Amino acid sequence: MTTHMTKPLTVAVVGATGAVGREMIRTLFDRKFPATDVRAFASARSAGSTLPYGDKKLPVEELKEDSFTDIQLALFSAGGAASQIFAPHAVRAGCVVVDNSAAWRMDERCPLVVPEVNPDHLDRHKGIIANPNCSTIQMVVVLKPLHDNATIRRVVVSTYQAVSGAGQKGVDELERQTRSLFNARDTENKVYPHRIAFNILPQIDIFLENEYTKEEMKMTNETVKILDDPAVKVTATCVRVPVFYGHAESVNVETAKKISAAQARALLSQAPGITVYDNPRELMYPMPLLAAGEDMTFVGRIREDESHETALNMWIVADNLRKGAALNAVQIAEALCARELVRVPDTNAFLQ
Amino acid sequence: MTTHMTKPLTVAVVGATGAVGREMIRTLFDRKFPATDVRAFASARSAGSTLPYGDKKLPVEELKEDSFTDIQLALFSAGGAASQIFAPHAVRAGCVVVDNSAAWRMDERCPLVVPEVNPDHLDRHKGIIANPNCSTIQMVVVLKPLHDNATIRRVVVSTYQAVSGAGQKGVDELERQTRSLFNARDTENKVYPHRIAFNILPQIDIFLENEYTKEEMKMTNETVKILDDPAVKVTATCVRVPVFYGHAESVNVETAKKISAAQARALLSQAPGITVYDNPRELMYPMPLLAAGEDMTFVGRIREDESHETALNMWIVADNLRKGAALNAVQIAEALCARELVRVPDTNAFLQ
Repeated sequence: MTTHMTKPLTVAVVGATGAVGREMIRTLFDRKFPATDVRAFASARSAGSTLPYGDKKLPVEELKEDSFTDIQLALFSAGGAASQIFAPHAVRAGCVVVDNSAAWRMDERCPLVVPEVNPDHLDRHKGIIANPNCSTIQMVVVLKPLHDNATIRRVVVSTYQAVSGAGQKGVDELERQTRSLFNARDTENKVYPHRIAFNILPQIDIFLENEYTKEEMKMTNETVKILDDPAVKVTATCVRVPVFYGHAESVNVETAKKISAAQARALLSQAPGITVYDNPRELMYPMPLLAAGEDMTFVGRIREDESHETALNMWIVADNLRKGAALNAVQIAEALCARELVRVPDTNAFLQ
Repeated sequence: MTTHMTKPLTVAVVGATGAVGREMIRTLFDRKFPATDVRAFASARSAGSTLPYGDKKLPVEELKEDSFTDIQLALFSAGGAASQIFAPHAVRAGCVVVDNSAAWRMDERCPLVVPEVNPDHLDRHKGIIANPNCSTIQMVVVLKPLHDNATIRRVVVSTYQAVSGAGQKGVDELERQTRSLFNARDTENKVYPHRIAFNILPQIDIFLENEYTKEEMKMTNETVKILDDPAVKVTATCVRVPVFYGHAESVNVETAKKISAAQARALLSQAPGITVYDNPRELMYPMPLLAAGEDMTFVGRIREDESHETALNMWIVADNLRKGAALNAVQIAEALCARELVRVPDTNAFLQ
């Protein structure tokens, strides 16, 4: 008689009380992630509260340097500063980190992974795997099949990003400002530098030396790293819009090889993680309203660009908290399990 | 003793009760347009009501085929069908028409004019001058100085267009849907095919054979006609956003000659009708909130495109009811007066 032994797998969510952290816990449950235990960490301020995990309630524990003993896998969404400090401690304790912040994305030691696009990059991980920026993820899911088939040369993208990209506080700000305006009261800007209700801000994250925002340069640099091809040029304009959930992107793609709209539609229909939703005659095209709460990346308005011999226009929408954050992180965790990569090759890899 | 005689100039606003018509009347008054009389026309349904013109009240008259006797200049904003029918009647009566609809824009007999860009096209008018589409006007105001200096080859534009672009009913729809959502009631779509409150629609106007919308092809075709240069290629993605007033545009411009962001800023600062509002360090950039109620076209976020050797990115915002419609029409009327072109060269030019 043989006994089937399951290897224990304790998963931690760090930054569990934030908008993405909550979505991570929900996603672990919904996808029946094979964890033997799930633990929730946050700052001292939130410690002692609980978070739902199916019917169970997870106690929220205070995050400390020595929190990671007996934890094999941690999903971080606690901001860049916390990731910078705590991820190396996790790795030292033998815990693999999937980090949703920008802290480790461009670090050469850390793979930057979208499971539909570059799962093989996981093979060389050293303990920390970075989850790309929300606006990058949904774009590369669509770019990848086109790049494989027609070789992308240049991408011009303009985004329409929801307030939940700034976390729950962004959602609260849009709601509060909208209510104030409808009740003839003054509005206050706490989260964004200008009013977001019934307005559009061409700024996400801070401005850099080159006058692009950090968000815009994330799209440029992360896309190259994920596609593993410095020949792909990306220029981005990132814009916040008064929408709660779901990022949209207007994407112009120039390819080396001519590809028709019909060919692109056919290719994308076969590709993982994508729903081609493109029937203008029936007024069917992706919208935040459609994508919110969904796991897929939606693409539509696919059409040949008449200003360029080998370019396409398209419109890409996904749920920024799901595919743009929590879902992609959980999918990375699933891929790590499938590839038997939930192990730290060198616990000192990230020590100073 | 000499007597200074003022030539009588009666100006009509046709479609006076709509969002743009009201703005036309306001603009005529605000700019002290040299009319000896202003008359307001609308459909039989609105006839009998009045509209404010400064302290005065203009009676709204029913529009008829013979309404244009004794009227020298008419500003039309009553929709394409009404323009198609009534503008030729006006011309036959010797009245010059400035038409805000799409009906005459691509007609070879009709100049399509933005006074800062191509006022000379007025010289060859035959009785009807077309006012371009809102999203085209604000873009060409900015493109013109760049084209003169560096020769534009290609433009990739994505728009963020306010609901007032669909008239007062668009404004009402966004307001009603927002209130419903905040009061936990169902929303109804009367004006747009999908909910616009807290959502984004990648559709403005109807879809054409080539899967572009009519609005997108307006931007392509009207830009070429206004700049009078078929070598300028434009590809557009036109998108409706939940904003009441003010259209924004993310514009990527490829030029034949290299032009730096600093040079572009200097050029645009000298150009008519433009306010360069571009100081990201102080979080100053154009927004609908800033542009609403203003006459200028605002441009900011001017930066060199690192994906292309001779391209620039920029962000253009203007009040769609003012510069995008009423103001541009009144400016055309002013230019007609200045050039002594308020006369119909051939009253039969538009008869079938």
